[in-house]
Amino acid sequence: MNGAESLVRTLIASDVNLCFANPGTSEMHFVAALDRVEGIRCVLGLFEGVVTGAADAYYRIAEKPASTLLHLGPGLGNGVSNLHNAKKARSGIVNIVGEHASYHIKHDAPLTADIEGLARPVSDWVKTSPDSRSVAADGALAVEAARTPPGGIATLILPADTAWGEAEGPAIARPPGPRKRISADAIREGAKALQAGESAALLLGGAALRGKALEIAGRIAARTGCKLFSEFNNARQESGAGRVDVPRLPFSVDQGLALLAETKQLVLVGAKTPVTFFAYPGKPSVLVPEGCRVTEVADVAADLEHAMAAFADELGATRTPPAHVSPFEPPPMPSGEPTIDGISAVITNLIPENAIVVDEGVTTGRNFGAWTRNAAPHDWMSIMGGSIGWGLAAGVGAALAAPDRKTFVLEGDGSAMYTVQALWTMARENLNVTVLISANRAYRILQGEFKNVGAGSPGHRARDMLTLDRPDPDWIALARGYGVEAGRATTLEELNRELKRALAMRGPYLVELVM
Amino acid sequence: MNGAESLVRTLIASDVNLCFANPGTSEMHFVAALDRVEGIRCVLGLFEGVVTGAADAYYRIAEKPASTLLHLGPGLGNGVSNLHNAKKARSGIVNIVGEHASYHIKHDAPLTADIEGLARPVSDWVKTSPDSRSVAADGALAVEAARTPPGGIATLILPADTAWGEAEGPAIARPPGPRKRISADAIREGAKALQAGESAALLLGGAALRGKALEIAGRIAARTGCKLFSEFNNARQESGAGRVDVPRLPFSVDQGLALLAETKQLVLVGAKTPVTFFAYPGKPSVLVPEGCRVTEVADVAADLEHAMAAFADELGATRTPPAHVSPFEPPPMPSGEPTIDGISAVITNLIPENAIVVDEGVTTGRNFGAWTRNAAPHDWMSIMGGSIGWGLAAGVGAALAAPDRKTFVLEGDGSAMYTVQALWTMARENLNVTVLISANRAYRILQGEFKNVGAGSPGHRARDMLTLDRPDPDWIALARGYGVEAGRATTLEELNRELKRALAMRGPYLVELVM
Repeated sequence: MNGAESLVRTLIASDVNLCFANPGTSEMHFVAALDRVEGIRCVLGLFEGVVTGAADAYYRIAEKPASTLLHLGPGLGNGVSNLHNAKKARSGIVNIVGEHASYHIKHDAPLTADIEGLARPVSDWVKTSPDSRSVAADGALAVEAARTPPGGIATLILPADTAWGEAEGPAIARPPGPRKRISADAIREGAKALQAGESAALLLGGAALRGKALEIAGRIAARTGCKLFSEFNNARQESGAGRVDVPRLPFSVDQGLALLAETKQLVLVGAKTPVTFFAYPGKPSVLVPEGCRVTEVADVAADLEHAMAAFADELGATRTPPAHVSPFEPPPMPSGEPTIDGISAVITNLIPENAIVVDEGVTTGRNFGAWTRNAAPHDWMSIMGGSIGWGLAAGVGAALAAPDRKTFVLEGDGSAMYTVQALWTMARENLNVTVLISANRAYRILQGEFKNVGAGSPGHRARDMLTLDRPDPDWIALARGYGVEAGRATTLEELNRELKRALAMRGPYLVELVM
Repeated sequence: MNGAESLVRTLIASDVNLCFANPGTSEMHFVAALDRVEGIRCVLGLFEGVVTGAADAYYRIAEKPASTLLHLGPGLGNGVSNLHNAKKARSGIVNIVGEHASYHIKHDAPLTADIEGLARPVSDWVKTSPDSRSVAADGALAVEAARTPPGGIATLILPADTAWGEAEGPAIARPPGPRKRISADAIREGAKALQAGESAALLLGGAALRGKALEIAGRIAARTGCKLFSEFNNARQESGAGRVDVPRLPFSVDQGLALLAETKQLVLVGAKTPVTFFAYPGKPSVLVPEGCRVTEVADVAADLEHAMAAFADELGATRTPPAHVSPFEPPPMPSGEPTIDGISAVITNLIPENAIVVDEGVTTGRNFGAWTRNAAPHDWMSIMGGSIGWGLAAGVGAALAAPDRKTFVLEGDGSAMYTVQALWTMARENLNVTVLISANRAYRILQGEFKNVGAGSPGHRARDMLTLDRPDPDWIALARGYGVEAGRATTLEELNRELKRALAMRGPYLVELVM
């Protein structure tokens, strides 16, 4: 058995059974091993950002890592942006990156690059396998790193001769590293903060936004009267009817400051002290008001369901009926011009039960949550690292993790461009994805940000850098180019009709909403 | 004046007057300065790989750097692959990468990343500007680094507060660093090698493949009887009728070894000792046969025209009429099925005089040179770092560097996918580009490489990773989606008709050749 096969067998033994791939010559022995050995599904992406963004979303839903297969430094480079997003999401991914044969590197052939240097900024664990007999054990270490809570980016670099050289066999799977300990003191401190009789807020992140932990948050809010918030972006938040509503902190600095202005006690479970997305001249970076005390109950890497249960116990809230449970109460179906509220209302009516919503709506989708809490129950996933070009790729990964659920991607036209090739993978794998492109033909967010940073009003050269018009991208043509059925909407009635059609079918469909 | 404006004025003073941009919030003050100050043309790319690939090709034709404008670490990440190609091409580029305001970085907001860490593997010069008063001087240093022969990747990281803070004014432009010295000893050694009476070859690279240097190579070949070769890939090689024909070394290891088997003296001018693109089990990495002596006359960073003149002088070849001058002798226009020879013949007939050919044909285009030497005179540009996804972006940069010449992009369908968004920039800027996509619906090169590395025959999982079919991408639809006119050819007659139409018009047109 060669090194490549020993690695494939180790991955399978470690419960990694999906590989998002964009291979090249240096990975051919790994491709051959994937071919020969039954047990790993291989999904091709026509661009590496598709591969890494899909792996991020897959982890969030499947709760276990997929592997990627990337072609040397430049292939990894193309995946960097969505690895950045995945790292911020604390997703677990096992990157297999091919490298020249070890003896070939010194010759500085065209594709030679500092792969470890490129990997480090977007990885929690990086190793170049030294020889074919080490590859299996290194693979087991990589999976361990990827699975260690809450998840990590493990990048294993595989010189071609370590793949084709002789190996002894697969390595035994390694358990994930330990979770962060929950501190009884921190729980007592948190409880004191919520009971201090001052305006208090509980800021939740990570797994505290799902399942029993989320329900417990509602009990604690009912018991203590604290407000509930989630961070602006969340890897996966359960929302909709029957779930405890935890509104996201807003993107806008002024709105965030206003929302937290009266807070005297801010208690964190799985969340970090809230900071602004960007810095703006004359505005603070931290959203915590002066005089507000911040208490961390548990880190995102801890068992947050366990932490929330202990927290509720400390507060005597274990049996308190949860507050803020959302009713199923979609608004009347609207009509006319596609306003942001109108789009929110249509979507709230149509989100299928148990859908996975992938949110990269940027400008258009930013405040959908106020509406969609009254939709059917669903998971809501946000882009965690702020690097646009995640949503279509994430749609691929979510749909592969949960083929029986509908994945519903809310996209901006600017963002969708970066990993547009994901549409082809949706078509090839016949993924159960509906894509809504809100086509405002601009980097609309930047038109606001231009003002927000105090740069005044954009003139013609600036406008040209902030718009996607002349020509308007034709999303129907692009979707068809990749083999995905598509339809266009220009009114809310058309949006309703197109989305209904898309959400009812099994397979990919793209709706372009012209705004 | 703020830091951003001081930088824009410094760039203009340094003769940088084109900016390929994909900005975000942290770059808004730089965008505002570009808006306010006359002198830099701004070209938007919808993906950063378009931006960096365009800057690479721009340098090769304009012989001066453009700037890029990229959004923090992930924006740079998306540009990494084509920066890798540019670095291997020794192109000069001034990357301006936005960063959070210096005081904001410690808060680890979503977009926070190790930008310098990502930049270093693909840059020759990296600096984070410390404050707004340093930005102008740092900009001048960046241009100096980019212009220092043969060219360098300079990455200047600009925290937002250094852009919006007060500056004193622009910095004075700095001259490029010195060229590498030409050694009289090396020239004498090279001359001795060619006169040793043994089978000798002159391997040329960089600027030795253009203008007077190329002509002199023909004189030297006539005088000494040496063979002429260029490296497998070349940043820019003049070719076609009236030019000295310098065939490229082949991609195939066996063909390369066979071609050089009898060589006893290998003399390098602007080229490196030839190595294989990849390593293959049981095959050598270096293409130089045993017993062959390698002599370097001049490095790629030297003044190669001057070096070649001195070399010819040493050899008494200054007035020798050049050998291997290609005649204008296109083959008869072929017809029928699109074979590789047939495609070569059509192209050889149609390359417009003084065209810039951007070659990312990978499998289909690999041996076109044997035919196109008999086409009208043209420049031929290859992808230098082996990271596919360069050609369409390079087409944008070449066309902006030489708007009065026709840019003719030869693309594989697999390669074209990575920076497909370049088509939109071609449409928006109405660039004078013809794109030929050879659509074999596969990573055809990899189907060969699978065998070459000894991995046997691909089974169904491997085949799925090596093909782009199911569904076949529809390039006509994709082109139209980006606003580019397009036509399809399935025979050589149709190819002739479509290409004729495309090459005769002014503006972008894409031809999909279904193979």
